[in-house]
Amino acid sequence: MIPAKPLPSFLTQRFEGWKATTFAENKHWYKRLAVEGQRPRVMVISCCDSRVHVTSIFGAEQGEFFIHRNIASLVPPYQPDGEQHGTSAAVEYAVTALQITNLIIMGHSRCGGVRGCYDMCSGNAPELEEKSSFVGRWMDLLRPGFEALEDGDEATRVDALEKEAVKVSLRNLMTFPFVAERVDDGRLSLHGLWNDIAEGELHGYNAANDRFVKV
Amino acid sequence: MIPAKPLPSFLTQRFEGWKATTFAENKHWYKRLAVEGQRPRVMVISCCDSRVHVTSIFGAEQGEFFIHRNIASLVPPYQPDGEQHGTSAAVEYAVTALQITNLIIMGHSRCGGVRGCYDMCSGNAPELEEKSSFVGRWMDLLRPGFEALEDGDEATRVDALEKEAVKVSLRNLMTFPFVAERVDDGRLSLHGLWNDIAEGELHGYNAANDRFVKV
Amino acid sequence: MIPAKPLPSFLTQRFEGWKATTFAENKHWYKRLAVEGQRPRVMVISCCDSRVHVTSIFGAEQGEFFIHRNIASLVPPYQPDGEQHGTSAAVEYAVTALQITNLIIMGHSRCGGVRGCYDMCSGNAPELEEKSSFVGRWMDLLRPGFEALEDGDEATRVDALEKEAVKVSLRNLMTFPFVAERVDDGRLSLHGLWNDIAEGELHGYNAANDRFVKV
Amino acid sequence: MIPAKPLPSFLTQRFEGWKATTFAENKHWYKRLAVEGQRPRVMVISCCDSRVHVTSIFGAEQGEFFIHRNIASLVPPYQPDGEQHGTSAAVEYAVTALQITNLIIMGHSRCGGVRGCYDMCSGNAPELEEKSSFVGRWMDLLRPGFEALEDGDEATRVDALEKEAVKVSLRNLMTFPFVAERVDDGRLSLHGLWNDIAEGELHGYNAANDRFVKV
Repeated sequence: MIPAKPLPSFLTQRFEGWKATTFAENKHWYKRLAVEGQRPRVMVISCCDSRVHVTSIFGAEQGEFFIHRNIASLVPPYQPDGEQHGTSAAVEYAVTALQITNLIIMGHSRCGGVRGCYDMCSGNAPELEEKSSFVGRWMDLLRPGFEALEDGDEATRVDALEKEAVKVSLRNLMTFPFVAERVDDGRLSLHGLWNDIAEGELHGYNAANDRFVKV
Repeated sequence: MIPAKPLPSFLTQRFEGWKATTFAENKHWYKRLAVEGQRPRVMVISCCDSRVHVTSIFGAEQGEFFIHRNIASLVPPYQPDGEQHGTSAAVEYAVTALQITNLIIMGHSRCGGVRGCYDMCSGNAPELEEKSSFVGRWMDLLRPGFEALEDGDEATRVDALEKEAVKVSLRNLMTFPFVAERVDDGRLSLHGLWNDIAEGELHGYNAANDRFVKV
Repeated sequence: MIPAKPLPSFLTQRFEGWKATTFAENKHWYKRLAVEGQRPRVMVISCCDSRVHVTSIFGAEQGEFFIHRNIASLVPPYQPDGEQHGTSAAVEYAVTALQITNLIIMGHSRCGGVRGCYDMCSGNAPELEEKSSFVGRWMDLLRPGFEALEDGDEATRVDALEKEAVKVSLRNLMTFPFVAERVDDGRLSLHGLWNDIAEGELHGYNAANDRFVKV
Repeated sequence: MIPAKPLPSFLTQRFEGWKATTFAENKHWYKRLAVEGQRPRVMVISCCDSRVHVTSIFGAEQGEFFIHRNIASLVPPYQPDGEQHGTSAAVEYAVTALQITNLIIMGHSRCGGVRGCYDMCSGNAPELEEKSSFVGRWMDLLRPGFEALEDGDEATRVDALEKEAVKVSLRNLMTFPFVAERVDDGRLSLHGLWNDIAEGELHGYNAANDRFVKV
């Protein structure tokens, strides 16, 4: 037997609140979206972190944003080896089936995954080096970002690594033939963002000078 | 050079709206969350679909929900082979580092990923069988769900497959030692949900009779 | 021969600016909207006034808002007499063909049309009473609003008449069978707004107490 | 009671974004416009279509463009019969009260109203022939355009009808004495445009050879 339990009542209450407000206000729109299907314009790849919800930041309405969330909002390189690649599957579906026109990588401050990567690469987290560590192996994707860090104090370097994570993902996205082709012919635009949780700011990646600047 | 572009202006306006309202109202809370770190109580694994945002359905406040979103909200089985498993990394981080107490798998109606799996397993989507299809290989995870379907008309079977997807994921979750251990000693509860987009309803998985019932 | 002239160069320059920025950024989205058609969610009936652009206030993106603009954002009562009713045609198309789910009437401060109506009804604008005055005849629609005004000084009464205009239009909308039917069964929501140009504020009509309150 | 509802929250967020940016940046200008009144230079008559916003195409700043939008951007002939003519009222107000110097008729590709007219005149949309069809009666204005079409395949003829709509409106404008008089003495210029949504192009009506050419 699957040991699943009923929804806790604090969530049932919230669901009923949503149903009486947001759903009630947008009932017919939800019905149309169910019947006609979604037509999102933007895909966002964001972190699982509970402090960063792009649905809130961009007022993501029903049907507008296709959202993949994983640890540190990382995209692996193109690797069509027949294995399971959840992030690559999400990108493939959004780009080729839904034909989204904008793809945003959204990093953020105080990212636990990036911090773990920093510690691991600095030799301070041997448990993340173990083969069985899913977080460690996932954060291996960010090793090239760690290698690219300039010297400096730790806080500065961890901050910089959060931004490197966005750049690594943007670079990896371009290794997907169906992404590169559409970026090249203009059907798809890529965007890199970094959210400062404490200040409520967005910094956008500027390809011209390879820097992040406040939006 | 990374071919990234500035954020489109329609998103800048929305961000400014969030900053002037949600962020302004919760400024000090955001600051504390940044300094003290997140302490989410619940992890939700949900679909990328633009019509189903758990942040909306559960009024996800800043810091409360750790959210992983992938195609069809699938969890693969435990496979510590040193390869990259984004979903497993998210589960590991949520359960062992953040010590969340509730883990929800949230499926939904009209799921494009589940539909693709149904077509593939029925022999009607040969392109998804190709080794290079990320979506196809990802949806392989749901093959046991397809095998378990009862006879019936197509619409009924596709609906049923959406619910099998939730059950497959719950079962796979229990193959992770750190999940099973905490479910067994009561530190962690698992929950299966299915969202009917058109009706705005949640159906919860009832382990006792192996059925989904309206919340 | 039709005495039309080429577009003035100050507008050509602006068009080229749009093409190099907004269009270039959203090229593929425009193409999809052209091929797949529009699916706007909201209709707005707004004034022609050059100081009130809902496209700016709501960041109206390509494909989202179906917008009718006339003098004083008035809706006439349902009158299927075989004559030309441009506003009724726009409402009919939006509600029955496009199936929009929200219909907003947007009035505003310092409205020249409303002022003209006030002067006409007060006996101070005889030229607007002439049969040949298109503005006068159009503003006849607002006479019931003038009748409903409370005593007071002129400035207060003109302000109040701007808000009566929104209410007259909302009431007239309900005389259209295809509107009333959808409002009754929940497929369509009506909203009344009044924009204070100088203060940049929106006031929403609150049906419960028959007043406008700041959004 | 008027069954109006509060503004949906997704629009509130967007309004707050506008207030924090566009309004904040132009606060004093808005105040002056409120106190001194509008002084628009151009009137545009455009379609309600959600894919064609002249405010975007011409970067319509606060106070510059007086905009009337109706189905297919049609202008009826001069008919001072004491009935309500919303479009004629807007033209009268713009030309005689605001004394705009340029009046633009803006048509566009993939126009649903024009398509309806084509089907109706071809005998394929009997429901639009009914007396109670507001869209049908409104599109009667374009019947002379349909009569003027050359033979050819359907796609070419529908395209041509979109341009005929602009010409019909320009011709009808000249039946208004206050328009003709000002066009004749040079105080007012008329312009005909057609916007290709997919290509982001404007085609201007050239009276000399009765053709539309790319701006």
